[in-house]
Amino acid sequence: MKIALSGIKPSGLPHIGNYLGMIRPALRLADSYQCLYFIADYHALTTLHNGSELRSHSLSVAATWLALGLDPTRNLLYRQSDVPEVMELAWILSCFTGKGLLDRAHAFKDAQAQQREISAGVYTYPILMAADILAFGADVVPVGRDQKQHLEMCRDIAQRFNHAYGDLLIVPEALIQEEVETIPGLDGRKMSKSYDNTVPMFLPAAQLRKLVMRIQTDSVPVEEPKLPESAAVFQLYRHFAGASDAEALAEKLRAGGTGWAVAKQALFDAMEASLGEARTRYREIMGDADKLAGVLRDGAERARALASARMARVRRAIGMGSSA
Amino acid sequence: MKIALSGIKPSGLPHIGNYLGMIRPALRLADSYQCLYFIADYHALTTLHNGSELRSHSLSVAATWLALGLDPTRNLLYRQSDVPEVMELAWILSCFTGKGLLDRAHAFKDAQAQQREISAGVYTYPILMAADILAFGADVVPVGRDQKQHLEMCRDIAQRFNHAYGDLLIVPEALIQEEVETIPGLDGRKMSKSYDNTVPMFLPAAQLRKLVMRIQTDSVPVEEPKLPESAAVFQLYRHFAGASDAEALAEKLRAGGTGWAVAKQALFDAMEASLGEARTRYREIMGDADKLAGVLRDGAERARALASARMARVRRAIGMGSSA
Repeated sequence: MKIALSGIKPSGLPHIGNYLGMIRPALRLADSYQCLYFIADYHALTTLHNGSELRSHSLSVAATWLALGLDPTRNLLYRQSDVPEVMELAWILSCFTGKGLLDRAHAFKDAQAQQREISAGVYTYPILMAADILAFGADVVPVGRDQKQHLEMCRDIAQRFNHAYGDLLIVPEALIQEEVETIPGLDGRKMSKSYDNTVPMFLPAAQLRKLVMRIQTDSVPVEEPKLPESAAVFQLYRHFAGASDAEALAEKLRAGGTGWAVAKQALFDAMEASLGEARTRYREIMGDADKLAGVLRDGAERARALASARMARVRRAIGMGSSA
Repeated sequence: MKIALSGIKPSGLPHIGNYLGMIRPALRLADSYQCLYFIADYHALTTLHNGSELRSHSLSVAATWLALGLDPTRNLLYRQSDVPEVMELAWILSCFTGKGLLDRAHAFKDAQAQQREISAGVYTYPILMAADILAFGADVVPVGRDQKQHLEMCRDIAQRFNHAYGDLLIVPEALIQEEVETIPGLDGRKMSKSYDNTVPMFLPAAQLRKLVMRIQTDSVPVEEPKLPESAAVFQLYRHFAGASDAEALAEKLRAGGTGWAVAKQALFDAMEASLGEARTRYREIMGDADKLAGVLRDGAERARALASARMARVRRAIGMGSSA
């Protein structure tokens, strides 16, 4: 069975955009792949310099995956920082990564365009991402459009390494996810923490309902026909309800006589149906810190076993250790 | 007792320039400091992509230190790659290193000026150097002129980290070595592998003598007065002979009637007196691979114990692991 790898950066609490765009499709891969899910806490360190927040987000992300049905015995759930082999491999790969390659990375260019202060961590982030993938010999990596280039860079780096030492690293394939279209936030722009327009996962029902009612809509009166496809509320609904329910609501909206408030209530109900039980499980998991720590410890052990076998071969090839 | 740390990059076999400029003064520090000596094999990986060469150079460097009198029970001798905590810390520090700082690093600018292809490893090398130092809480680092700036960068990075999380990292002091003037090579330029003008350590006596006789001199005839200070052969002699012997030879050369061949023979004799016994020990050490591997394994264990205690505090502070 091929290995698929997905990571999520605990730079904040997971929100609906993460869920629809990344978590849900990644969980579905467990039917066809041996799946590795990891919490990219060392990536979050590029932006989050508050230890207790970073730790608590990491635990929330882990609990989120588990609440949504990730089976940590069939698949693998681990924290990046629990596998030091990854950071060691990142240094090794940096010796096979041209500076010119990093200069062309989208994430770096975006940061530059926004005139943000750029740390070496932000600049070399594609190398750590490559190590995340290559340390475990992942065959496929589900990526959205914005990560496609970084995966290309990972392939480049692996090929350069293999050219020098033989085929020790598996060159991964991108698995372009069909569903990762843009998920709109409360204001209709892409849902993102940086826009402050997110719907956090696992809000209590009353708070979730309030937030859903705040989603921006146009001011077309109740009785007039509406354009569902261009409304954030409908776009979100389509992700939670089945196709036939979505088509039924769309027809009602197009016909006129149905207000946006009805659509919002439908969205809220669909979200509750999808996530209500997971919310209960999430709270249970977050309420038992020892058990969660144990799940992560177990994941770390198994992840290290996987990475260290490959790293032993890599280290021998590059000339580390006393014997070849 | 304060901790002093010295590393040497196994990108080739140690030569007389390394010995006089770095190894000998570093070994003398053992009288006043708790000394950590390491073999910087992950730094060598930036330039050397041949595994068996890199491994064999690492072992030669270790044997060289030991042959010259390093006591691995009183001090610490280890391979950088045996302490993965260092590479993990390097990633952490990269999140506290501005890209602008790296752009100003001498090593990078030199590589740029020579229009060499620059890897991310070369570019971020000052970060790994900072991790080498900070992981072990070194108080002082002996540096030559060319490394002074990189140590300043290490201090900057440590201060930025400490500013965010409290004083977890010891900000090291530079120990400017008086003796690290330029050591001339066979052609009078700085002794350096890149000029192909080195005198390798521990050559068999006959080969060493041949090489010493090849040192370039001016063409002043035997009978005429000579300028000892500007001659590579005398500069090297001064480093091996005591001050009074050096003054005696200088006077003879200045007086005329003493040819350069005499000076070369004196240099060879002084080198044999300094290094002859060490050469025998070097061969013994290199002849017992298991014993050398054992010394390095022991050093690695003790070095990891030192680094991992500090790293546990660092990891807790930045939010890794399940509990604060």
